[in-house]
Amino acid sequence: MKIAVDAMGGDHAPEVVVDGALQAARDLGLEIMLVGRRGAVQAELDKYDTAGLALTLHHASQVIEMDEHPAAAVKAKKDSSMVVGMDLVKRREADAFFTAGNSGGALAAALFRLGRIRGIQRPALSTIFPSQTPQSFCFLLDIGANADCKPQYLLQFAIMGSLYAERVLGVPNPRVAIVSNGEEEGKGNQLVQDTVPLLKASALNFVGNAEGKDVPWGLADVVVTDGFTGNVIIKLSEGVSKFLLDVLKAEITSRSVSKVGALLAKPAFDAVSRRLDYREFGGAPLLGVDGVVIIGHGRSDALAIRNGVHVAARTVENGVLDAIKQGIARYE
Amino acid sequence: MKIAVDAMGGDHAPEVVVDGALQAARDLGLEIMLVGRRGAVQAELDKYDTAGLALTLHHASQVIEMDEHPAAAVKAKKDSSMVVGMDLVKRREADAFFTAGNSGGALAAALFRLGRIRGIQRPALSTIFPSQTPQSFCFLLDIGANADCKPQYLLQFAIMGSLYAERVLGVPNPRVAIVSNGEEEGKGNQLVQDTVPLLKASALNFVGNAEGKDVPWGLADVVVTDGFTGNVIIKLSEGVSKFLLDVLKAEITSRSVSKVGALLAKPAFDAVSRRLDYREFGGAPLLGVDGVVIIGHGRSDALAIRNGVHVAARTVENGVLDAIKQGIARYE
Repeated sequence: MKIAVDAMGGDHAPEVVVDGALQAARDLGLEIMLVGRRGAVQAELDKYDTAGLALTLHHASQVIEMDEHPAAAVKAKKDSSMVVGMDLVKRREADAFFTAGNSGGALAAALFRLGRIRGIQRPALSTIFPSQTPQSFCFLLDIGANADCKPQYLLQFAIMGSLYAERVLGVPNPRVAIVSNGEEEGKGNQLVQDTVPLLKASALNFVGNAEGKDVPWGLADVVVTDGFTGNVIIKLSEGVSKFLLDVLKAEITSRSVSKVGALLAKPAFDAVSRRLDYREFGGAPLLGVDGVVIIGHGRSDALAIRNGVHVAARTVENGVLDAIKQGIARYE
Repeated sequence: MKIAVDAMGGDHAPEVVVDGALQAARDLGLEIMLVGRRGAVQAELDKYDTAGLALTLHHASQVIEMDEHPAAAVKAKKDSSMVVGMDLVKRREADAFFTAGNSGGALAAALFRLGRIRGIQRPALSTIFPSQTPQSFCFLLDIGANADCKPQYLLQFAIMGSLYAERVLGVPNPRVAIVSNGEEEGKGNQLVQDTVPLLKASALNFVGNAEGKDVPWGLADVVVTDGFTGNVIIKLSEGVSKFLLDVLKAEITSRSVSKVGALLAKPAFDAVSRRLDYREFGGAPLLGVDGVVIIGHGRSDALAIRNGVHVAARTVENGVLDAIKQGIARYE
C-alpha cells in the first residue's frame, strides 16, 4: 500500500507532516511518498532515523497556500504538491493521497486531475463530527464543496456517506438523516422537501430530518446537507465551543477560588477536549472523485497526520471507491 | 401603555405567565391584558395580591398547543389566546402582544389578523444571540419564518433588524452582516451572492459576510440569514452547548477530585450560564407584521416573561413600527 502525502499542506508543514508521515510508515508499515519541495522536505527527513522505512520523496516546486483561491491556484500551479500528489494517484503510482492543505484546493485539484466517479454528479467534502452516537461521532457531508445543491446531489452524498461509514468507520447499517428546520416530515426548505422522497425511496437506512440540535445528539450516523449549511454547521460549532470555553476561562481567572477549582477539574476538561479532538480521526474523505483523497485539518499536528494517513489506508483497504461505483447503481 | 399577554403560551403556562406578567405590571407600571381561559387564569390571579395593578382578563376559550401545525391551528381555533391577543392589537385596544407560545402559531396568527406592513414582502422571526459584541449579543434573523428566501427579503430583514437594534437594543449604527460559507466577498450560495449587492447599495452599515464561527464572535450587531439557515444556527448552538456541558458534567462526576474542583469553579460556571441565559432578554420581535408582537422562549420562567413584556413596551415606546414603515423607503 502506497500513500502519497502532501508534505507542504497544513499550517505546520513540512515539519509536522514529515513527522506524522514517518510515524505512519513506522507504526502501520505503509509505503509513504512525500510530495513537496525537495530541499525543505529532505531537511526535515534528515532529523530522523529513517532506516528500514519505505519512503520516497517526490519533488514538487510549488505550494498552494491556505488563503489562495482554489481553482485559480490549481490552474496556475501545475507543479504544486497538491497537483503532483493527485497525479500520483491518477497514474496509480499511489493508492491514495493525503493532504492537510487548502481543502478547496484539494477539491479543485481532484476534480481537475482525477475527475468524478462515473454517475456521480458532484463530489462532497466531509467531516467527522462529535456526536452522542455509539461510536461518539457522526459523518457529516457536504461541508463546503457545493454551496448550491440539487436533490440528486444530496441523495448521492447520502449513499457515499453511508458506504464510507459502513466500510471505514465500522458503523453497521448507518442511520442517515438530512438537516432540516424541524423534525417533522414536511419541514424543510424546498431542497430538503424535494430530497426527502428520494432518500425514502432509496435502499438507505433513512431516519428522517435532523434539526440543528440533533446533529451532536446522536440521532444519525450519517448527516447530509448542502455545502452552504454544512459549512455553517462546522464553523458555528467551532465558534460556539470556543465562545463557551473562553467565557468560562475568563470567569475562572477572575476568581481565585475558581482558579483552584479549575485546576482540580482539569482532568475533566482535558477529557472533554479529547472528545472534541479532531486529531483522533486525522482526516475525512473527499467523496465522489475517482481516487482516494483524504483531507486533514489545517491545524493538524504529527499525530493527526499519522492518523490521517491511516484513514487513507483504511479507505483503500476497504474498497470504498469500488463500493461507491457499484453502490450508486444499487441505492438510487 | 397596554400590553396583551398570552396567558396560555409557553411550557409553564398559565402559572409562570401570570406570575411574570404581574411582575411587569408592578415593576414597570404597565397595564396588562391577560388573554386566556378565564377559569385557569383567574385561579392563578387568586394566588396574588393584585390590588393597585392595572390588570384585565380577556377570555379566550382555546389554546394553540406547542406541537400543533401553526397555520391549521390558527384557522381552526379562532377563539384561541393567540388569535384573540392579536385581535386586541388589531383593534388598537392593546399596544403590543407578548406570547411564549408556539412561534409558528404566532407568525400565522399575526399574518392572518394583523397582516404585513405595507411594502414588507415577508415577516421574520428574530432572536437575541450571545456574542462577543460590546453589548454581549447580536440580533439574528430570520430564524424560521421563511425557509426559502429571495434577496429582497433578506435586505428587508436587514433593514428591520438594524432599526430594531438601534431603537430597542441601543446599538448605535448597527453593523450588519450576512451569514455565508466564507468571509471573502464572492463566497456564498446563490442567495447570498445575489443579496450582497443589495446590502452594499443600501444605506445600512453593512460589514460583509459572517462565517458560522463569526456569529458568536462579535463581528456584527445584526446578522441576517434565510429562515432555514437561521433555524439550524439557533438549534445547533443549543445542541453544541448542551453537548459540551453534558460531557463536562459526566467527566466531572466520574472523578472525585474534579468534583471538588467543579464545586469551587461553580461561580464561574454560573456566570457562563448567565451569559447564555435567554431570560435576561425575555423575547424578540416578529418583525414585518403590522403590530408589535414579541415572542418569548417556550421554556420561559416568570423572570423571562416579565422581561419579555418589558421588551414589548420598549418596542412600542421607541416607535419601531413607524420606523420600519418609514425606513423601508429610506434604506432600500
